[in-house]
Amino acid sequence: MREQAASFFRSLQSSIIEALESFEPSVRFNADAWDRPGGGGGLTRVLLDGDVIEKAGVNFSEVHGDLPEDFAKTLPGEGTSFWAAGVSLIIHPRNPYAPTVHANFRMLDQGGEQWFGGGADLTPYYPFAEDATHFHKTIKEACDPHDAAYYPDFKAWCDRYFYLPHREECRGIGGIFFDRLQADEAHTLSQRFEFVQDAGRAFLDAYIPLLQRRKDLSYGEREREHQLIRRGRYVEFNLVYDRGTTFGLKTRGRTESILVSMPPLVRWVYDYSPSEGSAESQIFEAIKPRDWASLEGETYHY
Amino acid sequence: MREQAASFFRSLQSSIIEALESFEPSVRFNADAWDRPGGGGGLTRVLLDGDVIEKAGVNFSEVHGDLPEDFAKTLPGEGTSFWAAGVSLIIHPRNPYAPTVHANFRMLDQGGEQWFGGGADLTPYYPFAEDATHFHKTIKEACDPHDAAYYPDFKAWCDRYFYLPHREECRGIGGIFFDRLQADEAHTLSQRFEFVQDAGRAFLDAYIPLLQRRKDLSYGEREREHQLIRRGRYVEFNLVYDRGTTFGLKTRGRTESILVSMPPLVRWVYDYSPSEGSAESQIFEAIKPRDWASLEGETYHY
Repeated sequence: MREQAASFFRSLQSSIIEALESFEPSVRFNADAWDRPGGGGGLTRVLLDGDVIEKAGVNFSEVHGDLPEDFAKTLPGEGTSFWAAGVSLIIHPRNPYAPTVHANFRMLDQGGEQWFGGGADLTPYYPFAEDATHFHKTIKEACDPHDAAYYPDFKAWCDRYFYLPHREECRGIGGIFFDRLQADEAHTLSQRFEFVQDAGRAFLDAYIPLLQRRKDLSYGEREREHQLIRRGRYVEFNLVYDRGTTFGLKTRGRTESILVSMPPLVRWVYDYSPSEGSAESQIFEAIKPRDWASLEGETYHY
Repeated sequence: MREQAASFFRSLQSSIIEALESFEPSVRFNADAWDRPGGGGGLTRVLLDGDVIEKAGVNFSEVHGDLPEDFAKTLPGEGTSFWAAGVSLIIHPRNPYAPTVHANFRMLDQGGEQWFGGGADLTPYYPFAEDATHFHKTIKEACDPHDAAYYPDFKAWCDRYFYLPHREECRGIGGIFFDRLQADEAHTLSQRFEFVQDAGRAFLDAYIPLLQRRKDLSYGEREREHQLIRRGRYVEFNLVYDRGTTFGLKTRGRTESILVSMPPLVRWVYDYSPSEGSAESQIFEAIKPRDWASLEGETYHY
């Protein structure tokens, strides 16, 4: 299954890149192949300064070797030897009305135990209920055939995970987040893998229509400033709380691949607080956890 | 001594603000007084969008109450009850040739033990050996009369502390860093306090001349971009490694006062690497730990 999983993640990387490049008349993803000193390697692909996409990173990696003992102890398997493959991506559109999106899908094999993890979550700067609803519904439809508990469980997990306690804010409007999907009484490992493939394929259907309908909305300095400030929350979450990022940096992973998630341009303003009733101020209400998949976006207003 | 220390930190805040405002014809520091729910409070003062200073935060706080038990256990005193006062500051100049600077000075009282901590360190974006030398010499002259070991010990501590393992880079050219200066066989607590006062007063002499001589140097888009990217390292250090920041955020300190250290505008570029031989590329050599106080800046070239 390792080979199948790695092959799926590699092809998912390609199809996501193809879809994103179709928005760009002149810029293309670079391709940076790298080797991991301890074993394995990856292909980091970054697009910068597009018309629609200000920055996107879509990374594939397949690595193996030994984990730090302290970390290995927190995992399901025995010993420190591991293998992992996955794809991870972040898209920072230029237009402030287009949401940032993050996703990753991975398989781990450690000490005889194998599992899948991953997820996809959306971070808008302006609230469009129909975008949130479309994103969640599309993902829910990919989850439901596999296990009716997947979407509600993984949606709740996502809301808990992407939370900034020091801001008392969620990072965005969520999506799904899951980890340690092993074989159990109800699922074979193959069934877990089938789910991960469907979730991975659903990503483009969930996100691309949002980019399509927001990329040409007109905006000015005010919207751009709001976007740059909200991007600061993204940086705060990733550097202070995100397990993948902090673990990667502290165990000397490939820094440039890990920090490709950083937004291209970010502003911090002391005590930023959009005026009451402004479009900008509505984002605080919009990012509160909500049952998006059950809402009809067209008729729902903040 | 608590009262004396708090009073000194308060007056240091005022004199630093006065010195910085003298550079600005039209903008002034705001003044944001706040109460800490658990006890005490502070005065956060921020200057934004000046001609010379893009952003500066100079904070005073005097707080007391109970520390989280896990954290209290790592401290010299008994129990969780504590009192702390201090001043902390960060200055992000607009001109890329003018260095960013950070300093803080504080007194702690916990479970019958009292100590001082603090430091000052410089983060240039372009290497000027004479700036580094002036900064270190001025601080060394403030340290030496108190204890000949202070400067070398605290300089080395600073180099160790402000280090980004994932970049294999120091944050800047250092300065001094010290903590847990308690009374011991060689020093009374009053003598520790005398030292902290001299170090605090030396800060302006160490930094202001650098701001004065770099603030009007002409620069363009290239230098500005380099500055914005290097500021990203500052964010990475503060959010991933800095104990004050991460502890403050995780224990629900006042977020806006803690994150006033964030630069006003920051850029992340994938795999940024200034061309060999460029002025920008010299910063990597310049930030390697060096015995700045013994160098003659005028005759030393990178």
